[in-house]
Amino acid sequence: MNSSGVIFRVSLFGESHGVAIGVVIDGCPPGITVEPDDFLPDLQRRQSGSRGTTKRREADLPEILSGVFNGVTTGAPVTLITRNSDKISSDYDEFRNVPRPGHADFVSQKKYSGFSDMRGSGHFSGRITWGLVAAGVIAKKISGSSEIIAKLISAGGSENIEEALTKAIEANDTIGGIIECKVKNPPLAIGEPFFYSFESAVSHLIFSIPAIKGIEFGAGFKAASMRGSQHNDPFIDIKGKTATNNAGGINGGITNGNEIIFRVVVKPTSSTGVDQNTFSFRDGEMTTLKVKGRHDTCIALRMPVIVEAATAIAMADLILIDRGIHNR
Amino acid sequence: MNSSGVIFRVSLFGESHGVAIGVVIDGCPPGITVEPDDFLPDLQRRQSGSRGTTKRREADLPEILSGVFNGVTTGAPVTLITRNSDKISSDYDEFRNVPRPGHADFVSQKKYSGFSDMRGSGHFSGRITWGLVAAGVIAKKISGSSEIIAKLISAGGSENIEEALTKAIEANDTIGGIIECKVKNPPLAIGEPFFYSFESAVSHLIFSIPAIKGIEFGAGFKAASMRGSQHNDPFIDIKGKTATNNAGGINGGITNGNEIIFRVVVKPTSSTGVDQNTFSFRDGEMTTLKVKGRHDTCIALRMPVIVEAATAIAMADLILIDRGIHNR
Amino acid sequence: MNSSGVIFRVSLFGESHGVAIGVVIDGCPPGITVEPDDFLPDLQRRQSGSRGTTKRREADLPEILSGVFNGVTTGAPVTLITRNSDKISSDYDEFRNVPRPGHADFVSQKKYSGFSDMRGSGHFSGRITWGLVAAGVIAKKISGSSEIIAKLISAGGSENIEEALTKAIEANDTIGGIIECKVKNPPLAIGEPFFYSFESAVSHLIFSIPAIKGIEFGAGFKAASMRGSQHNDPFIDIKGKTATNNAGGINGGITNGNEIIFRVVVKPTSSTGVDQNTFSFRDGEMTTLKVKGRHDTCIALRMPVIVEAATAIAMADLILIDRGIHNR
Amino acid sequence: MNSSGVIFRVSLFGESHGVAIGVVIDGCPPGITVEPDDFLPDLQRRQSGSRGTTKRREADLPEILSGVFNGVTTGAPVTLITRNSDKISSDYDEFRNVPRPGHADFVSQKKYSGFSDMRGSGHFSGRITWGLVAAGVIAKKISGSSEIIAKLISAGGSENIEEALTKAIEANDTIGGIIECKVKNPPLAIGEPFFYSFESAVSHLIFSIPAIKGIEFGAGFKAASMRGSQHNDPFIDIKGKTATNNAGGINGGITNGNEIIFRVVVKPTSSTGVDQNTFSFRDGEMTTLKVKGRHDTCIALRMPVIVEAATAIAMADLILIDRGIHNR
Repeated sequence: MNSSGVIFRVSLFGESHGVAIGVVIDGCPPGITVEPDDFLPDLQRRQSGSRGTTKRREADLPEILSGVFNGVTTGAPVTLITRNSDKISSDYDEFRNVPRPGHADFVSQKKYSGFSDMRGSGHFSGRITWGLVAAGVIAKKISGSSEIIAKLISAGGSENIEEALTKAIEANDTIGGIIECKVKNPPLAIGEPFFYSFESAVSHLIFSIPAIKGIEFGAGFKAASMRGSQHNDPFIDIKGKTATNNAGGINGGITNGNEIIFRVVVKPTSSTGVDQNTFSFRDGEMTTLKVKGRHDTCIALRMPVIVEAATAIAMADLILIDRGIHNR
Repeated sequence: MNSSGVIFRVSLFGESHGVAIGVVIDGCPPGITVEPDDFLPDLQRRQSGSRGTTKRREADLPEILSGVFNGVTTGAPVTLITRNSDKISSDYDEFRNVPRPGHADFVSQKKYSGFSDMRGSGHFSGRITWGLVAAGVIAKKISGSSEIIAKLISAGGSENIEEALTKAIEANDTIGGIIECKVKNPPLAIGEPFFYSFESAVSHLIFSIPAIKGIEFGAGFKAASMRGSQHNDPFIDIKGKTATNNAGGINGGITNGNEIIFRVVVKPTSSTGVDQNTFSFRDGEMTTLKVKGRHDTCIALRMPVIVEAATAIAMADLILIDRGIHNR
Repeated sequence: MNSSGVIFRVSLFGESHGVAIGVVIDGCPPGITVEPDDFLPDLQRRQSGSRGTTKRREADLPEILSGVFNGVTTGAPVTLITRNSDKISSDYDEFRNVPRPGHADFVSQKKYSGFSDMRGSGHFSGRITWGLVAAGVIAKKISGSSEIIAKLISAGGSENIEEALTKAIEANDTIGGIIECKVKNPPLAIGEPFFYSFESAVSHLIFSIPAIKGIEFGAGFKAASMRGSQHNDPFIDIKGKTATNNAGGINGGITNGNEIIFRVVVKPTSSTGVDQNTFSFRDGEMTTLKVKGRHDTCIALRMPVIVEAATAIAMADLILIDRGIHNR
Repeated sequence: MNSSGVIFRVSLFGESHGVAIGVVIDGCPPGITVEPDDFLPDLQRRQSGSRGTTKRREADLPEILSGVFNGVTTGAPVTLITRNSDKISSDYDEFRNVPRPGHADFVSQKKYSGFSDMRGSGHFSGRITWGLVAAGVIAKKISGSSEIIAKLISAGGSENIEEALTKAIEANDTIGGIIECKVKNPPLAIGEPFFYSFESAVSHLIFSIPAIKGIEFGAGFKAASMRGSQHNDPFIDIKGKTATNNAGGINGGITNGNEIIFRVVVKPTSSTGVDQNTFSFRDGEMTTLKVKGRHDTCIALRMPVIVEAATAIAMADLILIDRGIHNR
C-alpha cells in the first residue's frame, strides 16, 4: 500500500540504506514547468544539518527519470529518485536482534517474518519522506494560488525551541514538537463526503509520515470544551468569510474558503541516548539498549516541509476530483 | 467518494430525509453468521433518546437486501437499508437560503451548485452514520478476538457529563466532547506502510464522521512535551509487551500487540438555539439565525459506537490485506 | 470486488432470488435530471419476454433510494433497487448438489466454501445486470452528445436470428451470439495509458457480464491477417477523420474521435435441456443432468442494452478523469 | 492511471527516449528470492534482435533500486529500472507534425495539449512493457505451481510465420499475429465477481499492452456458433475436470481448475514503410508519410512474454485477494 490518491497518485519506494529512494507521481497534468532546481528549496528544508538534526549528510539531489520533457510535465508519470550515499549500516546491526523501544524494529520483524531490510530502519525510515517532499513540490504547482505554510510552533513542550534543544542535547535525549500548517487562499469546496473529506484525505497522508501521532483541525481538541455558540464561526460576508475560524476552514469535510489550519504532533525521536529496557531476539533475554548512531534530537525540526507536501498532495488530488465531477 | 477500503469495502448512501439510508459491504468473507438482531445493540447505542439527544425517533431497524442466506454471509456484497420515517423537512426550508454557521449548509450549496438535498442536511447528516454502524457490526465479527470499546470521557470540557449537559440545555446551547477508543487483544502486525498505516486507515474513516475535528494516538499531543526516554515504551517481555503505552499500540504504523488506544474530539453540535450571524443567499443581506428544529445538545453522546464501527471497519480491511500478502 | 470505476463508481449487489437487487452510483455529477421513467426503456430492453428468452417475469421497476431530489441528481450517491418477485427457487435445489456444466455452480461452491446462495445462481445470475443497465442510463447522460448503440448481429452462427432461434428451441438447446457496439460522435482523447486505456476500461466491465467470452475492437482478430499498410487508417482531414476504421476509433488506448466500434461474443446459455455429464457433491458419483427451470434459449438477445450500459459507464469514468486532469 | 492492481500493484513509468524506464511493484510478499539474473530470460525473450524485429539494441539489464535485500524481497515495494541508451530521437522529429496513421501520435498530441514527449512514441512506446515483463517475473513466483506459457500461433494470417515474415519484409510492410496463452495447473477459484472476474483482470492488463486489439477465452468467438450442449464442458470427475475446455478454464469469472486458455490478437506494427495519407499539424495540409526509423516488422514476435507477464500479474493480485478474504 505504498501508493495513495485517486487521480493524483503518489507511490513511494526505497530504503534508508538501499540503492536509492524515490517517488512516482501519476495523474500529473501536462504543461507544468518542472526544473530540477525547483525541488531544491523544499528538499533542503527537509535536510538535516541544523542543530538538533542528524549528522548524516545526503546530497539529496533529484534525478528526473520520466514524465518531464523540455522542462515541462508531459502527462506521463513523473519519476524522481536520489541515490543514497552516506550510509553507515553497521550502526544498525544490533537492532535486528535488539529492537529499539518506540521504533518499528519489533513490528517490522514480526510483520515481514524477518525479511525486513533493517539497515537504517529500511522502508520505515524518515528518509523515505524525500519522495513525499519531491512530490509535494509538483503538487504545490497544482494547488494554484494557494499558499501552504507549515511551522514548528513548539518543541519539547516549549515555545522557546532553542532552549528546549539545548536541554535535550545536554541530556543526550530527544524531544517532540507541534507543527502548525496553514493554507492561505485555499480553493473553495474541495473535499468529498462521505469518505474522502478534506480531513480524511490530509490525515491519511499525514499519518503515513513517521513519528506523527495526532492531528487536529481548527480549534481541534479545544472544541470539546466549547459551546456551539462559541465554536460556530459566524459569517461576516456573503462570500462565506467568517469572523472566527474554529472550523479550520472546513465544514462537512469541504473547504469553506477561509484559511485552512491544522496542527500535528511529532513524537520525540525514538532513538535516544538514554538507557532503555528491551530484549534480544537472539537469546530471548531481557537487556538494555543505549542507541548510538546518528540521529535527530528533534525530528520535528525537519517536519514542516513534509507536512506541507502531504497537504499539497491531498489538495491536488481533491482539486482534480472536484474538477472532474463538477466540470469547473 | 462514498466508498472506502481496499478489500473490505464499505459504500454509504442516503440522505437524512430521503427514502432510505444504507450501506453496501463488499469483500465480506463467507460463512459469518449475521442475523437482523445482531445489529440492534449497536444501532440502539447510536440512536437518540437519552437526555441531550435529538427528539427525532427512527425505528432504524435494518432490512438485509443481499449477501446473507440462511443467516450466514455468502461472500456476495451485504446490503443493509433502513427507511426514514420521522421527517419534518419544513424545519430545514430556511437553511437553503440562510446557511447555519458551523454547518455544511454553505459548502454544500457551493460544491453542488445548488442541487444538494438540504432537507435534514441531506447526505451531510449524521444520520448517514447508520450504515457505518451497521457495517461495523459485521466488521467486528472479522476482527476475531479483539474487543473494541469506545467511551465518552468528557463533554463540554467536564468529566461530569451530566452536569455539563444540564448547563448546556439551560443555555439552549450545545457542547462537544472527547471519546476514547481502546482495542483490547488486537491483532499483531496489521497496518501497511507507507500509505496505509493503522493510523492512516483509522483516521481516514474517523474524519468521515461528521463533527470530528481531531484524533490522537497513545500519548498524542502530550508527546510534544515528552522526552524520547519517557515516550518510548520499554519492552517487558519478549513477546513485545511494553511497560507503558505512549505509542497507543502502534509503531511505524503497525500494531505492536499492545492495547490500541486513541482519542477523538467531537465539536459541539452546530445547530444551537443561540443567535448567530449569517447571511441570506436570497437577498444577499446579513442576518441572524436561531436554529429551531430537533437537534442534539451533545452529539458526542451518540458517537462512541460510531467510532467503534469506523475502527472495526479499518481493522477488518487491514486484517484481510495482511492475510492476503503474508498468507497467515 | 463488486464496485468498479475511479471517479464514477458503480457498486452492484443482490442475488437472483434474494430480497432485491440494486446498484449504488457514486461520483455522479449534480444537476442531471433523473426521473423513474428514464430507466424504463433500457430496463425493458433488458427484460425477457420475447421469443427465446426466459418465462420469468419481473416488473423490474426501479425505486430510487438516494441521490435524486426534485428529479435532479444531488451529487450524493444514487441508489436504485428493484424487488425480486417471480422466484421459483425449488428449480435450483438440485444444482447445489449437481453442478450444471458450463455454469458457475461448481466454482461458486468451491470459492465460497459452500456458503453461496445458489438459488437462481445467486449473485452469479444475469439478473444482477439490472443494476448495470440502470447505472448505464445515468452514465449515458454524462457521455454528452455521444450515442451508444449495440445490436445483436448474429446468433447461433447465423445472421438469420429468427431461424437460428427456431432450430435451437426445437432442439431444446441454446445458442450464443455476437453483439456489435458502436459509439457515434464519441468524445475525443479519453482513455488513460498505461493501465486505463479505453479498451481496458471497457473490457474490464464487459467481462463482468455473465456469458461474455471475447471482445475485439475495430478490425479485431482480422488484424492478424492484415498488413500494416492495410490496417492503418489513413487520415482524410486535419481533424483526424480517417478513411477506414480498423482501429475501432482508438489509438494507443485513446479515442481518436472516429466512431468507436467493438464486438463481443456471448456464449450459448449454459442451462440447456439436453442431457449432460456431471457429478453429485452428495455421493461423489458421476451422473447426468437435464436442466429444467426457466431459462433463455439465447441470452444474447437481451445483451445489447447491457453492453451499452457497460460502455457508457466506462466512458463516464474516463470522461470525468480526463476532465479532472486536463481541466477541459 | 499508470498503476493497476488491488493488493499486488504495478506502476509503470518512463518514455522510449527518456532517461530510464521502470516499474514499482507494491504488495509483494516478503521472502521471495529475487536475483538480477532471474529477470534475464524473460527480458531477453522480450528483446528485439531476431528477424522481423527492430534494430534498436538495448542492454535492458535491470537495476534493483528497492525492495530486495540479500537476494530476497523484504515486503517493501520493489523498484526496477533500466537506462535507455540506444536512442535516435531525430527519427521521430517529423511525427510531432505529421502523425503516423494507426499510431498514437495524433491522440497523444490532442490529449496532452502538445506536451507529450513524442520521441520514440514516448510513454506510448512498446518499450514501456519492459517494466511489465520485469514485474511478471516476480508475479510468476507468486503464482505457485502454475505454469504460464504464451506462444505466437500465427502471423500475417499464416501459421507459417517465417514465410509470412519474409513476404512482409520484401513488401517493406508489417504484419500482425495471434498469441495463445495457457496456464497449466492454475489455482482453483480465483477471480472476483461481479467486477474483478478472471477475464476482467486479465483483459484490463492485456489491453494496456500497445497493439493488442482483441481477446477471447476458451472457444471465444467460436462460441457464437455453438449450441449450449456443445459449448458446456461436461465434468469427468468430481474434482471438476472437464472433457472439453470451451470455457477456457473459467466459469462465472472464476477459475475452475482446468487449464486456462485465451488468445489475443496483435495488430500489424503501425510504422510501415509503405506510403500513407496523413496531414501536417504545421501547415494544416494533407500529405503522405513513409515511416523510416527502426521498427518491428512483426511486433507480435516479441509479445508472448509480455502476455505472460500481464497474466501473471493479474493472477498474483487475484491470488492475494482470494487469500485475504477466504483465509486460505
